[in-house]
Amino acid sequence: MPRPASALRGDALAASLPVTLDDVRAAHERIRPLLDVVPTPARRYPTLDRLVGHDVRVVVKHEHMLPTGAFKVRNGLSAVTALAAGDRARGIVGASTGNHGLGLAYAGARLGCRVTICVPRGNNPAKNQAILDLGATLHEEGAHYDEAILAAQRLAATTGAALVHGVNDRAVIAGAGTLTLELLEQVPELDALVIAVGGGSQAVGALAVLNARRPSLAVYGVGSTGAPTQHDAWHAGERLTPTQPVTTFAEGIATRATYDLTWPALRDGLADFVALPDDAIAEGMRHLATATRHLPEGAAGAGLAGVLALAPQLAGATIGMVFCGGNLAPADVRRLA
Amino acid sequence: MPRPASALRGDALAASLPVTLDDVRAAHERIRPLLDVVPTPARRYPTLDRLVGHDVRVVVKHEHMLPTGAFKVRNGLSAVTALAAGDRARGIVGASTGNHGLGLAYAGARLGCRVTICVPRGNNPAKNQAILDLGATLHEEGAHYDEAILAAQRLAATTGAALVHGVNDRAVIAGAGTLTLELLEQVPELDALVIAVGGGSQAVGALAVLNARRPSLAVYGVGSTGAPTQHDAWHAGERLTPTQPVTTFAEGIATRATYDLTWPALRDGLADFVALPDDAIAEGMRHLATATRHLPEGAAGAGLAGVLALAPQLAGATIGMVFCGGNLAPADVRRLA
Repeated sequence: MPRPASALRGDALAASLPVTLDDVRAAHERIRPLLDVVPTPARRYPTLDRLVGHDVRVVVKHEHMLPTGAFKVRNGLSAVTALAAGDRARGIVGASTGNHGLGLAYAGARLGCRVTICVPRGNNPAKNQAILDLGATLHEEGAHYDEAILAAQRLAATTGAALVHGVNDRAVIAGAGTLTLELLEQVPELDALVIAVGGGSQAVGALAVLNARRPSLAVYGVGSTGAPTQHDAWHAGERLTPTQPVTTFAEGIATRATYDLTWPALRDGLADFVALPDDAIAEGMRHLATATRHLPEGAAGAGLAGVLALAPQLAGATIGMVFCGGNLAPADVRRLA
Repeated sequence: MPRPASALRGDALAASLPVTLDDVRAAHERIRPLLDVVPTPARRYPTLDRLVGHDVRVVVKHEHMLPTGAFKVRNGLSAVTALAAGDRARGIVGASTGNHGLGLAYAGARLGCRVTICVPRGNNPAKNQAILDLGATLHEEGAHYDEAILAAQRLAATTGAALVHGVNDRAVIAGAGTLTLELLEQVPELDALVIAVGGGSQAVGALAVLNARRPSLAVYGVGSTGAPTQHDAWHAGERLTPTQPVTTFAEGIATRATYDLTWPALRDGLADFVALPDDAIAEGMRHLATATRHLPEGAAGAGLAGVLALAPQLAGATIGMVFCGGNLAPADVRRLA
């Protein structure tokens, strides 16, 4: 099924959106007092504009400056603050290979609730340690993320803890939308947003805000050719069963599946979806570091790589991109040099 | 002349301080509306505490998150906002090899005044470009920083522009003091501050705040063995004439001289002054990047290297350190890998 030339907006998109602008506003009110950099800066870099060319103006939203070094702290705080006090008291459990676990652990530390994060065996030890440092319990089980989710479901069922899924959770998606709420206030003249898509919380949160506030603004998705399921599904117009293991170093977008809560809005709302190989993602990381002098993780490099790939068709536009995180694995720092 | 065992405070130190707490407060009121991350975060990292050991708690003040990527934007904004409108209209000139020039250029861009930055020939091209990107005029003259200062003095005299010295300027020092004003509010329980000393604006600004608000808090200076003049002078108890060229890669602390406005307060106010070689500074950078996942420049690495060196004598203390900037030259990124 070919994609329609233009993305849906208005009531047609609203039917696919899991959250509303009001949900995002409410999430922002809840999480704002718990963040020490809010709004995160939205900055221009002439060096970046020159690198991108095509008379494009790039605005960088610096989400890596948040606690835990990633936008996902918005998601974790939004989810935990949305729980009733009694539910929080029974504890929270989540599955993650990194930033979602850090976001939940941070929320638990700030709000005084017990958090357990299920990670697959062999998970990045630096991220495991950071989760432990925030006072959370680490539960290692399973060969990959999907098996860690099963472990989290079992723990939630046996202990009564609240399970917070990294994507299929309305409060998580509303939390991710808060960055777009801020960005529209900071840069009203934006023409387009380019967003790296892992589970899709960030892109779908953005679509929820834009559908109500700026429906003319186009949202472009960026994925990895090493984890192509979401990208391929979007171009096919239908959900696909993943057939290959993920291979990209950009773990923030290394998802194997589409997700019930984000798939319909991604399908209907994105203007385009590009997938890029690791060498283009690493080049995006290097350009981002050169222009901003801040340390990007792979998913942030993918965002800029997407801007570079889309620039010819967005000539003359003001493009927002998200510096979504800075948690580059120590072993990948060499990719910047 | 041997150093006294304890640093001066109260009226004895006040006589050496070029600015007062009220000057710093006034600077903060002027610059706060012009910054997009204020106060900058003050954060704890358990990984950092483990690396430092000796039961020390380290608080990191994230100044690299400011526009221009360095605390010196406080200095530039403070200096330019302190000028009368008529003086600003005649333009501003400064000499710099980097962050001071960027701070003045940023202030000029925000406040709509012409800025000229004199840099020595062969200066870091990335920093030159960033200064140009902010709309400032770049004037390349002289073999090193001291000759660039002479060029700036001549330009100021012939054009009527206001000269803003990177250190010998009360508004610059008051601007640098604003970070300590914020830090004391954020972390009232601090026992000590460890500050990398280039010209000394940051350490002397801190002493001005602390002498009025927390005289018991000790301030430690950190320098480079590749630019040892300030360190050696402090231990000698008298100003020294530099005899060797500077050799450190940490350009933020690569000063060849003591300065009229900061020397007396450094001499009287610091509790100790350590100097470290480039390999210890690079190790500090790597530890800081590992623990915080943010990109430090050399001077920020020197700050942590100082904490590591001083930790045995500060066992059990809560120590503030300044992540003073993130403008690591692209050629030095390899030092992180």
